[in-house]
Amino acid sequence: MKSSSLALAIVGLLVSIAPAQDAPRFDRTVRGKENFEAAIPRPDQDQVAAEKLAAHIAKTGKRPNILWMIVDDMGYGDPGCYGGGGAIGAATPNMDRLARDGLKLTSCYSQQTCTPTRSAILTGRLPMRTGLTRPILAGDKLTKNPWADERSLPALLSDAGYHTLLTGKWHVGEPKGMRPHDIGFDEFYGFYPAQKEITQGKDARRYPDLVNDPQLIRAFEAIKPDDHLQHGFKGGRTETLEQIKTTEDMGRAEKKLADFTIQRIGELAQQDKPFFIEHCFMKVHCDNFPNPDLGPLSAAKYFYKEAVAEVDLHTGEIVKALDDAGVLEDTMIFFTSDNGPQMDGWPDAGYTPFRGAKGTTFEGGVRVPGIAYWKGMISPGRESDGLFDLMDLFGVALNLAGVSTDTLAQDKYYDFVDQTSFLLADDGESAREAVYFWWGSTLMACRMREYKLHTKVILPESTHMDIDYSTLQTAGLAGWYFNLYVDPKESMPVGHRRNAWLASVLGKLKAHGATFKKYPPKDIGL
Amino acid sequence: MKSSSLALAIVGLLVSIAPAQDAPRFDRTVRGKENFEAAIPRPDQDQVAAEKLAAHIAKTGKRPNILWMIVDDMGYGDPGCYGGGGAIGAATPNMDRLARDGLKLTSCYSQQTCTPTRSAILTGRLPMRTGLTRPILAGDKLTKNPWADERSLPALLSDAGYHTLLTGKWHVGEPKGMRPHDIGFDEFYGFYPAQKEITQGKDARRYPDLVNDPQLIRAFEAIKPDDHLQHGFKGGRTETLEQIKTTEDMGRAEKKLADFTIQRIGELAQQDKPFFIEHCFMKVHCDNFPNPDLGPLSAAKYFYKEAVAEVDLHTGEIVKALDDAGVLEDTMIFFTSDNGPQMDGWPDAGYTPFRGAKGTTFEGGVRVPGIAYWKGMISPGRESDGLFDLMDLFGVALNLAGVSTDTLAQDKYYDFVDQTSFLLADDGESAREAVYFWWGSTLMACRMREYKLHTKVILPESTHMDIDYSTLQTAGLAGWYFNLYVDPKESMPVGHRRNAWLASVLGKLKAHGATFKKYPPKDIGL
Repeated sequence: MKSSSLALAIVGLLVSIAPAQDAPRFDRTVRGKENFEAAIPRPDQDQVAAEKLAAHIAKTGKRPNILWMIVDDMGYGDPGCYGGGGAIGAATPNMDRLARDGLKLTSCYSQQTCTPTRSAILTGRLPMRTGLTRPILAGDKLTKNPWADERSLPALLSDAGYHTLLTGKWHVGEPKGMRPHDIGFDEFYGFYPAQKEITQGKDARRYPDLVNDPQLIRAFEAIKPDDHLQHGFKGGRTETLEQIKTTEDMGRAEKKLADFTIQRIGELAQQDKPFFIEHCFMKVHCDNFPNPDLGPLSAAKYFYKEAVAEVDLHTGEIVKALDDAGVLEDTMIFFTSDNGPQMDGWPDAGYTPFRGAKGTTFEGGVRVPGIAYWKGMISPGRESDGLFDLMDLFGVALNLAGVSTDTLAQDKYYDFVDQTSFLLADDGESAREAVYFWWGSTLMACRMREYKLHTKVILPESTHMDIDYSTLQTAGLAGWYFNLYVDPKESMPVGHRRNAWLASVLGKLKAHGATFKKYPPKDIGL
Repeated sequence: MKSSSLALAIVGLLVSIAPAQDAPRFDRTVRGKENFEAAIPRPDQDQVAAEKLAAHIAKTGKRPNILWMIVDDMGYGDPGCYGGGGAIGAATPNMDRLARDGLKLTSCYSQQTCTPTRSAILTGRLPMRTGLTRPILAGDKLTKNPWADERSLPALLSDAGYHTLLTGKWHVGEPKGMRPHDIGFDEFYGFYPAQKEITQGKDARRYPDLVNDPQLIRAFEAIKPDDHLQHGFKGGRTETLEQIKTTEDMGRAEKKLADFTIQRIGELAQQDKPFFIEHCFMKVHCDNFPNPDLGPLSAAKYFYKEAVAEVDLHTGEIVKALDDAGVLEDTMIFFTSDNGPQMDGWPDAGYTPFRGAKGTTFEGGVRVPGIAYWKGMISPGRESDGLFDLMDLFGVALNLAGVSTDTLAQDKYYDFVDQTSFLLADDGESAREAVYFWWGSTLMACRMREYKLHTKVILPESTHMDIDYSTLQTAGLAGWYFNLYVDPKESMPVGHRRNAWLASVLGKLKAHGATFKKYPPKDIGL
């Protein structure tokens, strides 16, 4: 730590005597606070974005609304605007329109599975720090509530005067104290588990071994995830609504969730306070069931494709609801997926052009669609390959809501970077220098610029498999080092060439590892 | 043949008593002439397109110009509008604009290498029929001129009053009688071979073993491909222009070619006759050399990426030249690549999200970008997954030029399908039911709808390799049968499920094979 502290001091000195662009370095970052991830200084565009935001607030008289749409397990390649769409049997006109009229990110990263991504967005911290390194499953017994000492984004926004709502899938714990309306959301309308967990005990076609075995199904029923739609309110009150009894019910649920968000948009738009809505689709996580009321929506007809097309449909309806309510120009929208496709459910699985899938730290597992849309505030037709970690949404939301980062804990390390000006300034560039990839409690890889270094890799045993049948292996001495521009599929390691940049990536990885010494990770017994 | 003739008679009967849409069949095609590839009848949209075209001709007083841009070895994934672009280090704003303002095809197929594709486009016939199954290389001695008895597209268009020009790469033979201006083009301005062949004897950095070995370089010089820029005129007159002496000269050549096409557009637009220009980029075929006059054009900087960016630049300039000359609305543009990326030159190689590469009949080898743009005649923002074989351009060109298919040979089989109405009608659908994939003289695979059946496969020995280190293998009894919508990467064969459609694909393949019995392939001694 000593030498890196010294290096930071020198960096600080350099920055103080010359603008960053006059002194290009391999690692251009500066650390704002000791417990904050270092960022690339972008003073000019920060100024532009701040003025733009101030003018907007002055005009509307309140802070902007924030609406995120998070699809479950959708691959990078599924939307048409990312190379899929009609070409792979499910057109996505609404996603494509958001991208065309907003900012399409092509290097947007999630964690490699669901819970890590969702928790990271809401805490601004890596799963390894909060303990939420994997989904909390029915039957899991935690030794500690990971949320108890976190200052969550919905709590911070709620305190700042926002109405905060999570619709749809939660999947970060069912017990009291860990539900959305326990950890900061004013309101929750959705399901605690993923749809596969809800329906597997009811789906005799896919799981005859479970459904038709009295002993197994009894054991399942004893630990089964909550299959009721829940409506929760801050303070803990929870209305338990209808139960998902059949796979058809599950097929219909997505529309019900979208309808709720649409209804609440209409109501919340009338209020004086701004809103933060995190709309978490249940689909397209396997097992998908078509909505029997909607009819075939996709050319491919397969369940997964129907799910993509339905998510696209609701995406369009939700955006339209904002427009109808007169708040489209007052609402920052972000559309993404929580990780890459889960291949063990194939053909009920997504598409990524990249290597690997959900559960691996190859690009296929962690590179996801990322579209920022804000009518009048984000120029249409933008596209950027700048690095964006979904955790950065935490910083953007704080900035838009006017929440000072001084309110964050001093004794915790924060991994988000405030990317507000990347999104809002017309030629905004990313302030993130590096993305770190974890697999459970193992630090695996780092991307800087177009380079990615794996020190460890997850190697699935076949193309059908990912998280469930994979092995963790240590990469060679030089690591698996890829140039993602000339080798997007991560198949041709060039680490032996050890260019000057490689030392920077290694240095970055080491410095990242060191933050865990000073700020030890939380153990929640997962 | 008897049973299929009977089937056709029955099909004809069905069609005569009911519109095709009332009688859905697995194979919907009808054969217009016995020696023509059967097509899906699209009478309504044919009518729409015919009226649109007639109105255009009435307005302008002449047949429309035709301009094709064919990139060499560019991968399906390289343009931004196909998922690449800035995301892989070389933004392609001009290609993307053509796609956005035109019709983007997502199931557009080439042959698996250069010469087969180029010859098929110009003859409307599969390479196996014309004999042009592989590139004609320096030193090859043919027993027969494959062009001698073909009625080539440029000859047909020239006879119909068009000025026909090929700019750039030819690669279908240097000997007299086989040059562009021998086989029908009024004018040729370009190079006979691919750029790699021109520069390899001059590139001591890449090929020290060749350049620095006196014996080898003497042998090379004895057979070396023509490294001069040529300007040829129908009748045979050829002006030999400057020689490519260095790799820098090669880097500069692309701009020279674009400048020529631009200059000729300006001149030809003044004439009374319409023009047909086939602009064949030398890039992005390895070996690529950056144009030293243009400076870095791409974020990735690598030679291949610079080449993609330069091709994009010239694409924009050529379209602008049409606009400047006042003929943009009078010109049907098609932009494509002649096959997938050639991987043995990596990192001087393209990107495809699909399996395989140039030289294989997996999607990576044969699925290519295909953009039809015609201001005022093709509605902007269209996208279609309908099947399109680059050979179909032959039929489109004949239609636009008003050349009757009665002028084609009676004793030869034609594989093109006239797709004019697919391109021109607002909701135009493909008239092609099947695409056949050949590898040299071996029939490999067939695609119908989203299904693809391989009876044989090319398996490269590693991801670095394609055409040069691969083996031909027979697929299992059920074939390798893929649903490209749920498995775009062709990794999970589902042939054992043998659905009803599979029988149609097998039947189609058999019927295709049978055409070679009635119309025997040409042997040119390759």
